Amino acid sequence: MIYITRRERFNAAHRLFREDFPDEKNLEVFGKCSNPNWHGHNYELFVTIKGEINPETGFLLNLKQLSKLIKDRVIEKVDHKNINLEVDFMSGKFASTEMLAIGIWNQLADEISLAGAVLHAVKLHESENNFVEYFGY
Amino acid sequence: MIYITRRERFNAAHRLFREDFPDEKNLEVFGKCSNPNWHGHNYELFVTIKGEINPETGFLLNLKQLSKLIKDRVIEKVDHKNINLEVDFMSGKFASTEMLAIGIWNQLADEISLAGAVLHAVKLHESENNFVEYFGY
Amino acid sequence: MIYITRRERFNAAHRLFREDFPDEKNLEVFGKCSNPNWHGHNYELFVTIKGEINPETGFLLNLKQLSKLIKDRVIEKVDHKNINLEVDFMSGKFASTEMLAIGIWNQLADEISLAGAVLHAVKLHESENNFVEYFGY
Amino acid sequence: MIYITRRERFNAAHRLFREDFPDEKNLEVFGKCSNPNWHGHNYELFVTIKGEINPETGFLLNLKQLSKLIKDRVIEKVDHKNINLEVDFMSGKFASTEMLAIGIWNQLADEISLAGAVLHAVKLHESENNFVEYFGY
Amino acid sequence: MIYITRRERFNAAHRLFREDFPDEKNLEVFGKCSNPNWHGHNYELFVTIKGEINPETGFLLNLKQLSKLIKDRVIEKVDHKNINLEVDFMSGKFASTEMLAIGIWNQLADEISLAGAVLHAVKLHESENNFVEYFGY
Amino acid sequence: MIYITRRERFNAAHRLFREDFPDEKNLEVFGKCSNPNWHGHNYELFVTIKGEINPETGFLLNLKQLSKLIKDRVIEKVDHKNINLEVDFMSGKFASTEMLAIGIWNQLADEISLAGAVLHAVKLHESENNFVEYFGY
Repeated sequence: MIYITRRERFNAAHRLFREDFPDEKNLEVFGKCSNPNWHGHNYELFVTIKGEINPETGFLLNLKQLSKLIKDRVIEKVDHKNINLEVDFMSGKFASTEMLAIGIWNQLADEISLAGAVLHAVKLHESENNFVEYFGY
Repeated sequence: MIYITRRERFNAAHRLFREDFPDEKNLEVFGKCSNPNWHGHNYELFVTIKGEINPETGFLLNLKQLSKLIKDRVIEKVDHKNINLEVDFMSGKFASTEMLAIGIWNQLADEISLAGAVLHAVKLHESENNFVEYFGY
Repeated sequence: MIYITRRERFNAAHRLFREDFPDEKNLEVFGKCSNPNWHGHNYELFVTIKGEINPETGFLLNLKQLSKLIKDRVIEKVDHKNINLEVDFMSGKFASTEMLAIGIWNQLADEISLAGAVLHAVKLHESENNFVEYFGY
Repeated sequence: MIYITRRERFNAAHRLFREDFPDEKNLEVFGKCSNPNWHGHNYELFVTIKGEINPETGFLLNLKQLSKLIKDRVIEKVDHKNINLEVDFMSGKFASTEMLAIGIWNQLADEISLAGAVLHAVKLHESENNFVEYFGY
Repeated sequence: MIYITRRERFNAAHRLFREDFPDEKNLEVFGKCSNPNWHGHNYELFVTIKGEINPETGFLLNLKQLSKLIKDRVIEKVDHKNINLEVDFMSGKFASTEMLAIGIWNQLADEISLAGAVLHAVKLHESENNFVEYFGY
Repeated sequence: MIYITRRERFNAAHRLFREDFPDEKNLEVFGKCSNPNWHGHNYELFVTIKGEINPETGFLLNLKQLSKLIKDRVIEKVDHKNINLEVDFMSGKFASTEMLAIGIWNQLADEISLAGAVLHAVKLHESENNFVEYFGY
């Protein structure tokens, strides 16, 4: 069993808030992250897959294939986008890093299985000081 | 003459566009950076000052003082903000990294002179692959 | 179950030695880390907590709350301090990175439980080449 | 139980290919990594060991000892070398990062046991975007 | 006058040696960098251009255009290549980082002028500990 | 003319204070950096030299020679040391990063001239947020 991690990056705008709260209440609960005019991040995404090495190629999965899969299923949908308004797989969800990591997991898990590996972890950095990890359960 | 650099960080949303262009034209000229729903970045700011070492303290300027000055004049105004809509010193200006670096220079140069040093450079990273430097002329 | 990590930093002096050894013996066993005049590090601390996402806020624990907790219980006590002489929770203990990581765990575990999450890991970097991880058992 | 990680680095040339494939087939399967004239990397190696803290010294294993062991058993053999042609423990094996990580594990596991700790993980970065982890099973 | 820097990366094999030296002499002068079986690096390239901001677009040069120019003129030619054997603009030249930086300058200077900016600096990292800068004179 | 930079690292303890001030006054002027029990840093040192490429070797100066020179003249004297108490070239001087950068310059400039290059810059990082540069005048 070997673990392989691919890093990808995207830039996006978001806002932490609840629609049923007035702006003052959102500010109280979510602080400056609730700014109605949005703010944004350079997100750094680490996708870890696991499985057995293919004896014919010496690797688990072609990294180009993995990178393309992440780009098609995730990066295309979030890069230079507004996470609250424009990302289909986040529709109706809270735009926190936690929920985004879970959304990304759901975008990738089946596709990676089809490609012959197992999705092990999604790690999502919102800044150099904060990151979230999700292992699918 | 000694040079000292202080790094500060902020997160913000922005959009590259011209109001006199329709969205299609903006997309053509500015690509995905023109997304009307905004996107954002973790900006990394390096402020370099120069001057002579104060013989009484052994340093050019107290770094706490420099950090506070950058926070008061820049970070407070841009962090978790929308650069196009909410930053007074960028009002009416294009929200590119180039223009933002010049705007930050103008926010800092006089204050640093008053504090007894000279502003040498403003370096602003928009991502790990792109940064801008401005030296005041 | 989601995992969240917060990075904090501190600078401190320390020395590796045993009081019951003469300096020569300490030098033999601990090398230049035993210097009686101390040396120091920029420590980088990663605190990982786990738990379930709060459906009301979309996150596990407010990161400001986590950061404040780490600052109150750890950073205030070690930053710009001498770990051998001044840190109450290291009193009578060896000032190695291993022991310091365990000390930090003990400072944080109960407080994080009270805040509604579970402390998962303490990772402590002494340099870019060396780090220690402790999982509480 | 405490976990300690030591980072070491090496530069090497390699090529991904199968001898029983013509160059065209290798190019099709392995892309530009199959270049018959080789290419290379700055590899970054993280070796994680685990065990109990020695009450006499306050650490798990002297990091100098761990570093020397990694240098003797791995770095000396791969640094500034051609992994396909010159590395004894990779002889007859595919020169992928996956296989190299497993080869490094096999070079280290017994020696670390003899030194009184347990090898927990080998993490090998081929670039800032790709890394492999192996846990021995 | 504003300065903009774009980072690109490439992986390549090379060897430091003189054809008129026997391997022993090359080993004596160039150390392990002279390995006849090659070694390699993850090179990190920073290209800095300068000029005046275009008042119509708010930037000096479209970064996509700059990135494409660097890719066409440099990255395509060196990535996953053997610098001694396969890079046309290094033909007959010593494959040191110094000479490579100068070669890259010569590949870029005229093209950047045609694009309306001025090439200011080429910085080339061979490792995290070594880099070279060339300013064109 | 080519510029080459070599990075080296060292860990040291220091304290910012004036002997003619009582501890209270030092605390007021220098803050927690004046702690009488010391604190410390992982210093990161970048030494930049310049000159013409040697046509026989294709480089400006053998990096091993430059690294050895920095180690002999600087790192040996400061690594795992107390800068206020134990570093001969800082004797009687204020242990600020500014003064340390100048002290390092003076340790290196003549030796680098003798080796056939010119010392261009000393850059010294005290933390990821603060660094000092000195160009010799």
